[in-house]
Amino acid sequence: MLNVLENCLPFFKDLTNEEKNKLSAASHSVICPPGQNLRSRKDDCLGFVIVKKGRIRVYMTSNEGREITLYRLIDGDMCLFSASCAMSNIQFDVMLKSEEESEVVIISPGVYKELMDSSLPVAKYTTELLSSRLSDIMWLMDQVLNKRLDSRLASLLVEESNLRESNLISLTQEQLANHLGTAREVVTRMLKNFQSEGLVQLKRGTVELINIKALQHLSLQ
Amino acid sequence: MLNVLENCLPFFKDLTNEEKNKLSAASHSVICPPGQNLRSRKDDCLGFVIVKKGRIRVYMTSNEGREITLYRLIDGDMCLFSASCAMSNIQFDVMLKSEEESEVVIISPGVYKELMDSSLPVAKYTTELLSSRLSDIMWLMDQVLNKRLDSRLASLLVEESNLRESNLISLTQEQLANHLGTAREVVTRMLKNFQSEGLVQLKRGTVELINIKALQHLSLQ
Repeated sequence: MLNVLENCLPFFKDLTNEEKNKLSAASHSVICPPGQNLRSRKDDCLGFVIVKKGRIRVYMTSNEGREITLYRLIDGDMCLFSASCAMSNIQFDVMLKSEEESEVVIISPGVYKELMDSSLPVAKYTTELLSSRLSDIMWLMDQVLNKRLDSRLASLLVEESNLRESNLISLTQEQLANHLGTAREVVTRMLKNFQSEGLVQLKRGTVELINIKALQHLSLQ
Repeated sequence: MLNVLENCLPFFKDLTNEEKNKLSAASHSVICPPGQNLRSRKDDCLGFVIVKKGRIRVYMTSNEGREITLYRLIDGDMCLFSASCAMSNIQFDVMLKSEEESEVVIISPGVYKELMDSSLPVAKYTTELLSSRLSDIMWLMDQVLNKRLDSRLASLLVEESNLRESNLISLTQEQLANHLGTAREVVTRMLKNFQSEGLVQLKRGTVELINIKALQHLSLQ
């Protein structure tokens, strides 16, 4: 455990031995199969999550249950908002779900908060992590406001194809809509349009990319 | 100056006398007439802005020049992002414009950053402020994604009427669109619709609210 914490938390080397041991004792490792919810209820103060290996999708849901992907956590990334109970002024909730088999370390909210309140390196790291997430969210806001949805869908398809190293994307139209924060019907209509233009081939639960170059071009518009 | 800093910055009392004097010497006061840009260029590292009195609109702009209001700073509020050069990992730009005559204090970016890097109370305050802004942005994201635009327009009109303590809102349709992050034509069409339903009366550069109750009702949908 000490090893993982040392690799993922830049402030770890600046802690006292006592602090290191305390943090380590308050952390535990979990293996998540693909599709497992790590945090799916708003009142769940799970703790601070570090992804040792794998990929975790962080998303928000509206009152009506519509989802949008905020960002993804990959190797070494940490999520602060899964412990919103321990963070002052965080008045929103994010959900976490593994997209592939993932190994995560969960740090108990109270112990991290104690360190954040008493250790300058931890407070500074937290500030930098918050700034970085805020930049992600502002980028997404700009996309949502200013990019056409067909361009965002094309961009998502190309990104998923790169992640999977395959032209065949096994995501339902519902799942694609949940990444983009829109309704399934809208995605269905757009995908049919893409199909009629020879960009993709639709099958049940999968989208095959036929003309990646054209999708890349569309994603830049 | 010491007085303003002491009133607006909760960490000020925890600084050493030397730090207090340094911060004070690095701060200066500015009076902004209504409509003045405090920060309108992306490469301007203005500094950390504290609003002593008045109201400052914080907004982002797209590449095409479309605006959306992120939040407003009123008495005692501080903006971190007007000094993005001094904040690690802040990769976005916000613009600041006074909405009424405002008195602001500007703290030089370098000196605040130095304190943030060396003082735990300053680092903790910065974390809380970042969390609070992130919550504002997430609230806005939820609105943009999940609320109908007519409902957001009704909400804006009611809010502006409350701020001005008047039913007559002297904002152009362009300005209303810039608050909401949409195109002027969309706002024009909606306002005409509101007018035909007896909710508002349109004149050049102003919107008069006729049926506030109905607008409030619509804003909750």
